[in-house]
Formats: sequence, structure tokens, C-alpha cells
Amino acid sequence: MKMTEQSILEFIVRSRSKADLRQVYAVGLQIGIGDDAAVWRPRPGHGTILTCDWFLEGTHFLADRHPAHSVGWKSLARAASDIAAMGGEPRCFLLSLALPEKRVGRWLADFLEGLRDAARAMRCSIAGGDTTKRAEILINVTVIGECRRGRTILRSGAQPGDAIFVTGRLGEAEYGLRLMQSSRKKLDPADARLQKHLYPAARLEAGALLAKRRLATAMMDLSDGLSSDLPRLCAASGTGAHIKLKRIPRVRIAKSDVHRGFDASRLALHGGDDYELLFTVAKKNVARIPKAIGRLAITQIGEMTSQRKILLSDGRGNTHPLENKGWNPFR
Amino acid sequence: MKMTEQSILEFIVRSRSKADLRQVYAVGLQIGIGDDAAVWRPRPGHGTILTCDWFLEGTHFLADRHPAHSVGWKSLARAASDIAAMGGEPRCFLLSLALPEKRVGRWLADFLEGLRDAARAMRCSIAGGDTTKRAEILINVTVIGECRRGRTILRSGAQPGDAIFVTGRLGEAEYGLRLMQSSRKKLDPADARLQKHLYPAARLEAGALLAKRRLATAMMDLSDGLSSDLPRLCAASGTGAHIKLKRIPRVRIAKSDVHRGFDASRLALHGGDDYELLFTVAKKNVARIPKAIGRLAITQIGEMTSQRKILLSDGRGNTHPLENKGWNPFR
Repeated sequence: MKMTEQSILEFIVRSRSKADLRQVYAVGLQIGIGDDAAVWRPRPGHGTILTCDWFLEGTHFLADRHPAHSVGWKSLARAASDIAAMGGEPRCFLLSLALPEKRVGRWLADFLEGLRDAARAMRCSIAGGDTTKRAEILINVTVIGECRRGRTILRSGAQPGDAIFVTGRLGEAEYGLRLMQSSRKKLDPADARLQKHLYPAARLEAGALLAKRRLATAMMDLSDGLSSDLPRLCAASGTGAHIKLKRIPRVRIAKSDVHRGFDASRLALHGGDDYELLFTVAKKNVARIPKAIGRLAITQIGEMTSQRKILLSDGRGNTHPLENKGWNPFR
Repeated sequence: MKMTEQSILEFIVRSRSKADLRQVYAVGLQIGIGDDAAVWRPRPGHGTILTCDWFLEGTHFLADRHPAHSVGWKSLARAASDIAAMGGEPRCFLLSLALPEKRVGRWLADFLEGLRDAARAMRCSIAGGDTTKRAEILINVTVIGECRRGRTILRSGAQPGDAIFVTGRLGEAEYGLRLMQSSRKKLDPADARLQKHLYPAARLEAGALLAKRRLATAMMDLSDGLSSDLPRLCAASGTGAHIKLKRIPRVRIAKSDVHRGFDASRLALHGGDDYELLFTVAKKNVARIPKAIGRLAITQIGEMTSQRKILLSDGRGNTHPLENKGWNPFR
């Protein structure tokens, strides 16, 4: 199928049948896709949150292993996760897409369906974008969100003594990734072990609730792994941290995989791509933190300290510095 | 130089000496680079304008031919041009950058200096971004602008009978590109013939003035060439157009290049990357359009028609449909 840049854009906005991306959820989106630029206005009393994320073939996904539907879902979900991490709600997004011509047919349709599903789940509307031709699939998504003024949760607000929490279970996405990488045959995308890797969820409900109730002193999302991201939260807040390994909620390894040597603790400490929230809470408010938000578990894993070190107690009586072994493209 | 993703971001935000990108011009930027996302609020009575643009090695520039400083400048200027085309003013931007490790030293410093120069010229602050490693240089820039509510100029507002105008001279960028492509030796980046190609300017003053005075019924920027972009304006407005070749302000070919067969008319009709503004004006307001805005010439080139055709009078008494031969990555 020969498509021009213009017709790709048209395909994106006009494919009403299965993937109508033009569904507008955001009341604030005044001019959407199709002009030189979009025009947006948040609700009164709200600020606009802006974030963008790469999602690149070969770097972040493999076109022959990852279903196009998952690529579409994940490209939006991971960018929206940064909005969750500020305590905001995503409203609309810009899609920059570069494609080889051979991907314009079925692959593009499946990709857009995954993107549409994520957009629908998060009530987030496409507002614009840019498309071009390229030998490999390149995706960049900018998400625009909103948050009530003065309620955004930064990385820099933690104090020594604050309790450290995470949502969900850590290491699940890395487990799925490794299964995909190591499997000789193509795994079923519906395999439960792959869901967190293929279809991560931005923790929007939890982030918004923490912002609304002013419960978190600092927050970020776990994209590169706890051992890489916790030091960033500490650096921004000018603190250290002390976490306990046995407290960390971690991936459950399937019985059939136990013999393959997966280490749930290592996956939980260093695995990336979970998009769970990492946040801190003042001592006086710890009792106000629920055990779960919706069906998402909330777990205390340690506390912030005044010494600028990240310490891990391993449950065998040893406490040592936590090695930074999360995902880093330049390593 | 071995750099991690985090240190590239630090390099970007901390290189104060020559390229302090952290200079904040935008009063509305409340939380800038360094957190999960940025927070932005336009001035009261204004809406937020959003746009993004690819700028890719091999597709949009050649790393061994185009100076890194120009790549930095142009990546921001071309994205900001979409803000000009809405009648808005750019305020801040998100930079997504993927780099090979070998580009992290000198190339990155020069790139950031060019970006800083464009940011300073347009009073546009960096608000965030995403960096990763990649075999080729990939750039995506999202620009956030503002415009007084109800004053944005869309592509869709033109009526039959409206006069069609352009800013500047068309074909200049394509002329520079072809000189660079065809020259055996590396040309001096200061060569006047290359300036429009290497350092295009977003026509912000003209765009904002037309919006402020409510003079333009429709507007867009010329990124792919008049013969590709005029049909888009017409399609959005549900009109046709009739332009006159001899009216079109065109590139001046240097005497030394005349023997090389450059055709100024063809360059002006089909050349891309000029980032001049194309806009329409109701007949009753044509007399209010100045001959120039600042030092930028404003020229009437034809008028909108009710028949859905794009016609060109060639000055030799012939009128025929204008062939769409502008830039298209899928052609």
C-alpha cells in the first residue's frame, strides 16, 4: 500500500471503524488534529502538565516480537505515566510517528487500535502529531495533562523520616521482557506473565488520589527500575533512603519458570518498565495511606534518611549500599 | 566521553557557559526540566498551542554536511513555525533527543548552542524532554505557545474571493539545500545562499500581528512547498485558488550559479523548508495589509476561488492546474 504523509495522517484521523482516535474526551481540547497546531485549555484552577517519551524500534521494542497493538498501547501508557507521577490526569496527546512503507498497512492499523484502546482507557484524545517515512519505526508521544494548581507532586519534596511507598509489584515487566527475549517460540501475547511488559498501566487513579488528599511529599514513576529511580528521587529531595528487601512487593515467578533461575528480588530492585509509582509520605500521614487504591496494592518499603546514601537491608541482617543497576541506554 | 542518559540531561541543563538553556523566558513555566513532567500556565485570557516536529538524521539533515549548530537552531525554529502559523507566540519546548555516543561531546555542545540561540531569539524556554542512545541522531521537538483566546488563525477560514498572501521569498531554502547537495567541497555555513536552509526563521512577528489585528481569515506555514501546502489550505477551507506565477516573490539565484540551471520559479513553487507564512485576507481588508512587517515583505500572489482547483497563471497567457510537487517523504 503506497501512502503519502498526508494520507497516513488521514488514516489516523479517519479510521473510524475499529480505531476512532478522533473520539474527543478532553473538554479542554479546542482545536484538535488537522491544523498547524492544537489549541488546549485546562479547566479553571488547573495547570497544564507536559511530558514526552521516546518509543523506538530496536531500543524500546522489537517489531517482530512485540505485537503492534501492544506498541500502540504502551507508547501512550508510558508517557501518561509521567502525568500520573505528578498527580495529574492526562487529557490529550501528540503522536510523532516515523514508519517504513511496509508497516503502513496492517501494522499501522493494529498500532492505532492499541493506541486507541489506551486513549479510551485513559480518556485522552489525540490532538496532533507529525508523520514521516523512515527505515525503522520511531515513536515519540507528548502527553498533555492537567492538575489542580498547587497540587502537583514533585520529586523534590521528600524529607528525612518520610516513609517510602510503591504501588503494585515490582519486576513484573522485566520478567515478561526476559521471557520474550529468551523464548525460542513466539509467546502468546495473552500470556499472563507478559501483561505488565506488553500492557503497562499508568497509575493515574493512585497518583490523582495522592495529589487530591495531599498525602505524598514527593513522587515519581518507576520507569528504569527502583535502584536507578530511587536515587533520583533522593537527589531531587536532597536526602538518602533506607529500604528493606523483604518489604518490596515483587513479581511472582510462575512455577514452570522457577528452574530457569529468575531472581524475583533482583527483578524487583533493578527491573525497568513497571510504571509503578514511588512516593514518600510524612510520618504523621502514614496511617492515612490505604492498603490499596482500587485493586492496586500500596506498600511501604522503607524510609528517607538525612545521610545521602541509598541503603538496602537484605533480610539476613546485612545493610549495604544499593547498587544502581536499572535500565540505562548508555551503559 | 562516556555519558549516561542522566548526565546528558544534566549536560543539557547545566552547560551554563555558552549555552545556558535553562534561561527562563516564559513567565508561565511553573515547573521546568528535571521532574517527571513540566507544568505550564498561559497568561489569563490566552489558550495553549501545541505542536511537534520530527528532525531526523538522514531524513531532514545530514550530520556530516549540516553544522550541529544549525541542526539545533532549525529543530526548534521549524517547530515554532507552526505556532507562528496559528498567530501565537512560542513560550517553551520539550526536546526529545537520541544520540550515538560519538556525538555526545563536541557535536552535542554545538547542537545545544544552536538550540539555545534559537530559544533566546524566540524567548522560548526548555521545559523538559527525553534522551536515549541510538545509532543515528533523532530529534523531536514539541513547542508550547500561547495565543489570546479566539484569535488563533486556522487553515479552514478562507472564503472564495479572499486574497492570498505570502511572507518573504519562496524557494530560498531549497536553493541552499541543492547547493549543499551538489557542491563537491564543504560550503562555508556563513555563505549567504545557505542561510535560509540552515537558519530558517519562524515568522512570529508577522503571525502575531495578523492575529492581533484579525486580518487573516486562514493561515499556515510553508514547510513542504507552495504547491503542496496551498492545496491543504484550500482543502481545509473548502475552496480552490488561482495564483499568478509572476507575482510570487522568489529566490534570487546568485550570478555565479546561473549557469547551473537553477529555475527560481520552480524553486518558489515546489521548494520546501522556507517556513514562510501563507495566509488569506478578506477583500475588504486587503488595503490594511502592509507591504512589509518589520523587514519581512508581504506579497499578494492570487486569490481563493469557489471551484475546487488550484490554478496557476504562468504569465505567458496560460492558466493550468498547479502540479503538487512539494516535499513528501513517501514519494
